[in-house]
Amino acid sequence: MTKTRKIILLGATGSIGSSTLRLLRKKRDHFKLIGISANKNASKLLKIAKEFNVKYVAISDKKIAKKYNHSSKILVGSEGLIELASIKCDIVISGIAGICGLLPAISAIRSGNNLAIANKEPLVVAGNIFIQEAKKNNVKILPVDSEHSSIFQCFNESHRENISHITLTASGGPFLNLNKSEFKKVQPKDAIRHPNWKMGKKISVDSSTLINKALEIIEAGVLFNLKSHQIDVIIHPESIVHGLVHYRDGSVIANLSLPDMISPLAVALGYPNRMNLNYEQLDLKKISNLTFGKPDLNKFPGLSFGWKSLDAGGAYPIILNAANEIAVEYFLKNIVSYNNIIDIIKFSLSKVNAKTPKDIEDSIEIDRITRLEVLNYIKGL
Amino acid sequence: MTKTRKIILLGATGSIGSSTLRLLRKKRDHFKLIGISANKNASKLLKIAKEFNVKYVAISDKKIAKKYNHSSKILVGSEGLIELASIKCDIVISGIAGICGLLPAISAIRSGNNLAIANKEPLVVAGNIFIQEAKKNNVKILPVDSEHSSIFQCFNESHRENISHITLTASGGPFLNLNKSEFKKVQPKDAIRHPNWKMGKKISVDSSTLINKALEIIEAGVLFNLKSHQIDVIIHPESIVHGLVHYRDGSVIANLSLPDMISPLAVALGYPNRMNLNYEQLDLKKISNLTFGKPDLNKFPGLSFGWKSLDAGGAYPIILNAANEIAVEYFLKNIVSYNNIIDIIKFSLSKVNAKTPKDIEDSIEIDRITRLEVLNYIKGL
Repeated sequence: MTKTRKIILLGATGSIGSSTLRLLRKKRDHFKLIGISANKNASKLLKIAKEFNVKYVAISDKKIAKKYNHSSKILVGSEGLIELASIKCDIVISGIAGICGLLPAISAIRSGNNLAIANKEPLVVAGNIFIQEAKKNNVKILPVDSEHSSIFQCFNESHRENISHITLTASGGPFLNLNKSEFKKVQPKDAIRHPNWKMGKKISVDSSTLINKALEIIEAGVLFNLKSHQIDVIIHPESIVHGLVHYRDGSVIANLSLPDMISPLAVALGYPNRMNLNYEQLDLKKISNLTFGKPDLNKFPGLSFGWKSLDAGGAYPIILNAANEIAVEYFLKNIVSYNNIIDIIKFSLSKVNAKTPKDIEDSIEIDRITRLEVLNYIKGL
Repeated sequence: MTKTRKIILLGATGSIGSSTLRLLRKKRDHFKLIGISANKNASKLLKIAKEFNVKYVAISDKKIAKKYNHSSKILVGSEGLIELASIKCDIVISGIAGICGLLPAISAIRSGNNLAIANKEPLVVAGNIFIQEAKKNNVKILPVDSEHSSIFQCFNESHRENISHITLTASGGPFLNLNKSEFKKVQPKDAIRHPNWKMGKKISVDSSTLINKALEIIEAGVLFNLKSHQIDVIIHPESIVHGLVHYRDGSVIANLSLPDMISPLAVALGYPNRMNLNYEQLDLKKISNLTFGKPDLNKFPGLSFGWKSLDAGGAYPIILNAANEIAVEYFLKNIVSYNNIIDIIKFSLSKVNAKTPKDIEDSIEIDRITRLEVLNYIKGL
């Protein structure tokens, strides 16, 4: 890279935000952070704004935004976030968790900004629209989710017709070896304890139920234009191999790295080049053992929702995502049990009568209605 | 591939030859075998010539060639082999073992034929000349050695400056877990018993001493223009991961396949496309465990000859290869012991006083002199 790239970072105070800032600190000559956002954590945001001399700052919470004091231009509320994403730059990084990332992400693309997306929910909920809009606006969608970054690095589009399938790996989460009968006792503090990755709470719970992998199946289907039977999932507790592309000549191309988001972020921010991070190199001699297994769908029925929703298409992925998001929120609040998460999703998917969404607004409406139904269902529990 | 590719197969009756024929049988519409060669096995060669209706046949042994009876045009002796390789075609596959492959391979390149090369010795002995001639004649050298095919598939030339190093895997051979004190009892029948790959006798012995990997270090240095410190070797007894490319952003791209030469052959013969072989797909769920370790240089000192010879350059790789070729030949004839193989190579490398070869003729002369010296040394044992 010869030219300094202008970067806007959505979700700067979260987990992906922190990894991005670590990367930018290593490469101050290569990148200029021009915009950042946070939901509520204004003091952390202010610190980042000062450190990187950031021009635009968006704060979702209006009350907090009023108290924020810095020379940056302040954008407020969800409209502010959408506006931030639309400011002309080289890459918008979306590190927002959940569905709130949807409109900012689409705003980035429609404004002609490349989108490095760690936030899987927008792709799950409105994947086809994202792909169409990216084509129309001639921008790149660069996956930052580690498994999809892996596939992105190994998937040679010009060999598509001779790609048999892809494999996404799953660590199996903290309950891989817990007896299913013990699931009813699982507390939020147990579920957010991911064995390999430091991540936000919501995605950590999703990893424990394998719903995270279910969403990733849908995300992979969208990003790489694959059918559900072309996406395999294997349990790989060491989280070193992240994704594999299987070619029809018997050859498999895989991506490996230490479990640190800085590597997929570097791939996305450096694309189509590679960056020199002087980063700790993976040494298989030290790791010595990589294990792989078949996921137990009886123990983790949430995984199969991924293939089913990708197959069914239409409203299914939206309902899966919305039901899961509310279920996890209420589990983290200690209002519903760990097993209830799967019950809630099953209930929601069984009630699908929504039509296939025509546009983002339709998708948002299906999302909204699902959430209301789930809240009602939770009241009845 | 739309057009039928014309193929010449050197070493058609050997191990690589058999794998190539298996592949060609699967893809009769894609390839036309126009030339084949063998050293002595005329009856097998005749069978192949009939099956594929081959136009040109080369037999090294002149007496045997006289008895050969088929409508093909017969080329005889080492000159015949060189002539065969020069016949205009799309790809010459060299599956010849040892240094005899050198002149036919260079003949292929100088005649403007792409070269798919399984035979590592020519690249070890005259690597730089091969690379220069390939550039000059605008042809591709396509590695068929499984490790180098792996690296070829994972090495993105446009990212070269941000490639940190590569890793070649080694099964460790049949004596990985044998105590070094037992090496003195090793018989040819033990040494040719490779745990994962079905290969010729010479290369199987080389795998057991790790000299095969030493030659591969030199081969990789030549093919990918790397220094010795950029080539790592790890022991990987399952032979599933064949090679890895480590990028400076912490990301590693690896190639995996079941241990069958048909996969690297398909990559070379299909290049730059991929072929659909409907081939058995690697399923890591079934393999379940991949292990990696550091090579024991005390037990296998032959491996370090690879780095040393690549570093030293000049006559060193030629001497390493020639000394090893004679040592293994005489070990297989039960004339020298297994431990003598390393003694012989050490003796030869310690006596190097040859100048850096300027051309193929110089390389062949160094090779010839080394062999004579080694034979003398063996007489003295």
